[in-house]
Amino acid sequence: MAGVRHVVVFNWTAEATEEQRARVVEALSTLPAAVPEIRAYAFGPDLGINAGGGDFAVVADFADESDYLAYRDNAEHRRIIDEVIHPIMASRSAVQYRLAD
Amino acid sequence: MAGVRHVVVFNWTAEATEEQRARVVEALSTLPAAVPEIRAYAFGPDLGINAGGGDFAVVADFADESDYLAYRDNAEHRRIIDEVIHPIMASRSAVQYRLAD
Repeated sequence: MAGVRHVVVFNWTAEATEEQRARVVEALSTLPAAVPEIRAYAFGPDLGINAGGGDFAVVADFADESDYLAYRDNAEHRRIIDEVIHPIMASRSAVQYRLAD
Repeated sequence: MAGVRHVVVFNWTAEATEEQRARVVEALSTLPAAVPEIRAYAFGPDLGINAGGGDFAVVADFADESDYLAYRDNAEHRRIIDEVIHPIMASRSAVQYRLAD
């Protein structure tokens, strides 16, 4: 079945603390249990292998566009974005693409 | 085993043609057979669900950092970047993160 993959790369602000970055990981870790439409979910801070990279990435897989939209608009997801991510977000680059499987 | 996931979001130039964009898909499709270190590889153009998103994303999984570096520096991969991607690339945002599995 062809799914939809959501990919997002974040850059944090220079002022973002380690505690604030860790809160993003903690908060996102709760989402697979809270959002039944999530098929696969993996995220993490940049390992620092390359200079000039982003700071954090999320990859989320869904059965279809409708399930992706349910995740995008999920109330707990929006709360995390507003309260945990936006305060330290400098920029964001996202794509949704068709996943052949 | 904990792997390494490479995530990259591209924005193409306003001048990029459909043919040039299609050549990126064709060229990247050859890489899993050419680069034995690739464990999983999926990419595609943005579906246009959200306004203001990137144009194209690649997600590539590797067993470890060494295998990611072999992919990053693979000669055929570099050729595709130089000849097919760079001519239409406006910007690029990439992260490598630890994949727990």
